[in-house]
Amino acid sequence: MKIVEGFELTKSLLSRQGPAVIVDGDKQEQKVRQVIADVRNRGDSALKEYTLKFDGIEIESLEVSKQQIRNARHQVDAELISALELAAERIRSFHNAQKDNIWNKFTKSGLGQLIRPLKRIGVYAPGGTASYPSTVLMTAIPARVAGVKEIILVTPPGSTGTVPLPTLVAADITGVNRMFCVGGAQAIAALAFSTESIPQVDKICGPGNIFVVLAKKLVYGVVDIDGLQGPSEVLIIADETAKAEYCAADILAQAEHDPLASAILITTSPRLANEVTREVEQQLKGLARQEIITQSLNKGLIALVPNLDEAIELANIRSPEHLCLMVDRAANYVKRVSNAGCILVGEKSTVVLGDYVAGPSHVLPTDGTARFSSPLNITDFIKFTSVINIDNANLKQLGPSASVIARSEGLEAHARAVDKRLETR
Amino acid sequence: MKIVEGFELTKSLLSRQGPAVIVDGDKQEQKVRQVIADVRNRGDSALKEYTLKFDGIEIESLEVSKQQIRNARHQVDAELISALELAAERIRSFHNAQKDNIWNKFTKSGLGQLIRPLKRIGVYAPGGTASYPSTVLMTAIPARVAGVKEIILVTPPGSTGTVPLPTLVAADITGVNRMFCVGGAQAIAALAFSTESIPQVDKICGPGNIFVVLAKKLVYGVVDIDGLQGPSEVLIIADETAKAEYCAADILAQAEHDPLASAILITTSPRLANEVTREVEQQLKGLARQEIITQSLNKGLIALVPNLDEAIELANIRSPEHLCLMVDRAANYVKRVSNAGCILVGEKSTVVLGDYVAGPSHVLPTDGTARFSSPLNITDFIKFTSVINIDNANLKQLGPSASVIARSEGLEAHARAVDKRLETR
Repeated sequence: MKIVEGFELTKSLLSRQGPAVIVDGDKQEQKVRQVIADVRNRGDSALKEYTLKFDGIEIESLEVSKQQIRNARHQVDAELISALELAAERIRSFHNAQKDNIWNKFTKSGLGQLIRPLKRIGVYAPGGTASYPSTVLMTAIPARVAGVKEIILVTPPGSTGTVPLPTLVAADITGVNRMFCVGGAQAIAALAFSTESIPQVDKICGPGNIFVVLAKKLVYGVVDIDGLQGPSEVLIIADETAKAEYCAADILAQAEHDPLASAILITTSPRLANEVTREVEQQLKGLARQEIITQSLNKGLIALVPNLDEAIELANIRSPEHLCLMVDRAANYVKRVSNAGCILVGEKSTVVLGDYVAGPSHVLPTDGTARFSSPLNITDFIKFTSVINIDNANLKQLGPSASVIARSEGLEAHARAVDKRLETR
Repeated sequence: MKIVEGFELTKSLLSRQGPAVIVDGDKQEQKVRQVIADVRNRGDSALKEYTLKFDGIEIESLEVSKQQIRNARHQVDAELISALELAAERIRSFHNAQKDNIWNKFTKSGLGQLIRPLKRIGVYAPGGTASYPSTVLMTAIPARVAGVKEIILVTPPGSTGTVPLPTLVAADITGVNRMFCVGGAQAIAALAFSTESIPQVDKICGPGNIFVVLAKKLVYGVVDIDGLQGPSEVLIIADETAKAEYCAADILAQAEHDPLASAILITTSPRLANEVTREVEQQLKGLARQEIITQSLNKGLIALVPNLDEAIELANIRSPEHLCLMVDRAANYVKRVSNAGCILVGEKSTVVLGDYVAGPSHVLPTDGTARFSSPLNITDFIKFTSVINIDNANLKQLGPSASVIARSEGLEAHARAVDKRLETR
C-alpha cells in the first residue's frame, strides 16, 4: 500500500464529488436502459434470456419454491444455521429499538400524521464472486420489523445454476414471501414493472454491481429505492496504541470484497504505518481471493498526519461507509464524526462484526453519500401521510391568511375555495 | 368534465404505472443532461446563458442580496406579511411536533444510533405562471426545524427579471442563508455540483417543472433529493351530503395550477355529479387562468360508483397527492386510506388550507408515489449514523458466528479479522 504524508496531500487524495457514472449517461447506462425496456416489454422471457446471456445459466423456473428454501436447512452445517439465526436475532432487536423510538403517530389541533409500513418490497441479494446470505438478513429483517407484509427476494444464480444454500437458509430464517433466481439490471426492471411471474414492489433495497445500481437509479420514481450503494469502503483512524495486526486484518477483509473496494488508514504513527504495510503483506499469504485483494490494495492508501484532529477532519471530508476508530479512548471521538455510515469504536469493533452480527444493517451509504444519507433502517420501510381536519374555528383562524397568500401567488380560484367556505360557515 | 360510471371503468381510467418519462431517456432528458454538463463545466457563465435562453432575462448578479430580501417587506401589503407569518408559525409548530416524536438517539448494549441534521440544503421555489412564496415556507421551515444550518434558495426570475416580492418576503421570514435568482435544470445542476457563486448542497428539495424533475433525477446520488414531484393532483370522494359548490371550487383551484394538474371526483350521488358539473361551469366565469383551467379539466373526471367502499378502493389504487373526504362522518374513513400524500377530512378542509396554512408541508408525493413515499418532513433533513462499540463479552458472544457466516460467503479474510481478535482477547 502507498504511504503518503500530511493533511493537504491526503485531503486532495480523499476528496470526491460523488459517483460520476451516475450522471454521465455512458454506455453502461444505455445498456441498462435497453435491458429495462426489454423486460418491460417481454417479461419473463426477457429475464430468462438475460440470465443466459449474463450469468451463463439456462434457467427453467424463475421462482425458487418454498420447498427448495426449506430443504436448504438440511444441506448446510448446523453451525451456519445457528450463526445466521444469532445474526437475525441481533438485527431484529436493533431495529425494534429503532422502531420504538420513531413509531409515534401524533395529532395536534386538527392535524395528524399517520405512519404505515410499505406493502411490498423487493430485496436484491448480490451474487457474483461470493454469496450474500447476510444481505438477505440485513434488508429483510428491518423491513419485517417495520411491518412490511410482503418481501420479494431476487438473487442471481450461483455458478452451479442455482441459488447458493446459505442464501436459501437466510431466506427461510427471514420468511421472505417469494424468491426468484434472477439478478442484474433485469431483476431490478422486473421488480419495478412486474412480469408474468414477478410482482411489482413499492421499493427495491440492497446493494449490487454497477448494472444493478444504474438500473435502480433509472427505475427510481416508478418505485422507491434505498440508495445507490457502490463498492464497500473502510477508513481506519489509528494512533500509536493501535495493533498493526488488527489494522492489517481489517484492511484485507475490506479489500477481499471487490477489486473496487477501498481501504484507507490514517494514522499519527509512522511506526504503525510501516508495521501495517508489513502485516498486510504477511497476512495476505494463504488467502484465496489474493487477486481481488491486490487489485483493491493498489488503490488503497496509508496517510500519515500530525494529529487526530486532522485525521477526524479528513474522515469527515471523505464521509466513508465504515469508519473505524482504533485510538486510545475511542468513544470520545464519536461525536466529532459528522459523516460516516457506521462508526466502529475501539479495536474489538472490526467491520466484520458489523457486516454480520452486530445488529445495525450493513447496507450503508458509500461514495461519500454519508454526507446526506443513512444506513438502511426502519424509516426506509414506512411512509407518512398527513391528515388535515379543519373545523369552523380553524377555518376562521386560518382561512383569511390562505386567501391572501393565494392571491399573492396569482391563484384566484384557490382564494375563492376558501372564501366560499368562510361565507357559508 | 367527463362523467363515467362504475368501478371497473373508473379503475381502468385511474390506474397508472408511475411517470413514464422518468425512465424513457427521451429528448427532454438529453437536453437536461446537456444543461447539467454545461453548468458543471462552465459554472456561473452557463447559468447566465441559460437564464437568458430559457427565462429571457439577462441577469447581472445571480445572488439576491440580503438587502433586497429585507426591503421586500416594505413593498408588499402588511396583510400578506401577516398571512405568511401565520403560515410560517403553523408549519414550524407542526414540524416541531413531528420532530419531538422521532428525535430519539438510543443506545443498546454497545450499539447506538446518532441522529444529525444535514448541513446544507437547497430549496427550489418554482416560478413560471405563478410565484410560490408558500413553497419557500413549506420546504425551508421543516429543514430549519430539523436543525439544518444552511439553506440555499434558488428561484427563477419573474417576468420583470427579478424575484417576485412575496417570494423575497418568504425568504426573509424563513431566514434562508443565501438566495439566487436562477431556475430550471441549470439551478439544480448548480446546487449539485456548485459554481463560482453557488455552493454544493447535501440535498435538493422542492417541486418544479419537468426539466427540474429530470435534473433532480439525474443528479440524485451526487446529492440527495426529496422526490420527483410532478403536476398537482386532487381526488375528492363525495357522497350525497357533500356541497356541490365546495367540490367545484376545489376542482377549479386544483385545475388552475397547471394544464397538467389533475382533478378527479368520485361520488355515489348522480345528483351531485351533475350539480358539480354545472357549478364548475358557473364558477369558472370570471377566473383569470381560464385557459389553464380548461386544459386541466379536459383531463379531469367525475366517476359514479355504487358505494363508498369502492370509492376508497379506487382512491387507494390511484394513490393521489391530495385526497378529500367530503362525506358524512368523514373522519371514520381516514384509517381505510392506505395511499395518499395528504388526507383532507370533511368539507371545511379544502386543499387550499393545506397548500398554505394548515402546517404539514405542501410538498407531497404525486403520480401514485404516495404508495411508497411521504410528504416532505423532518426525516428528509436528518441522517442516522450507526455506532458499534464491541467489548470483550460482545466479541465472545458474536465473534464465532461472524466467522462462520463469513466463511459461508467465501470471505476468508473477513473470518480471520474476527478470529485474530478472538485469539488475542
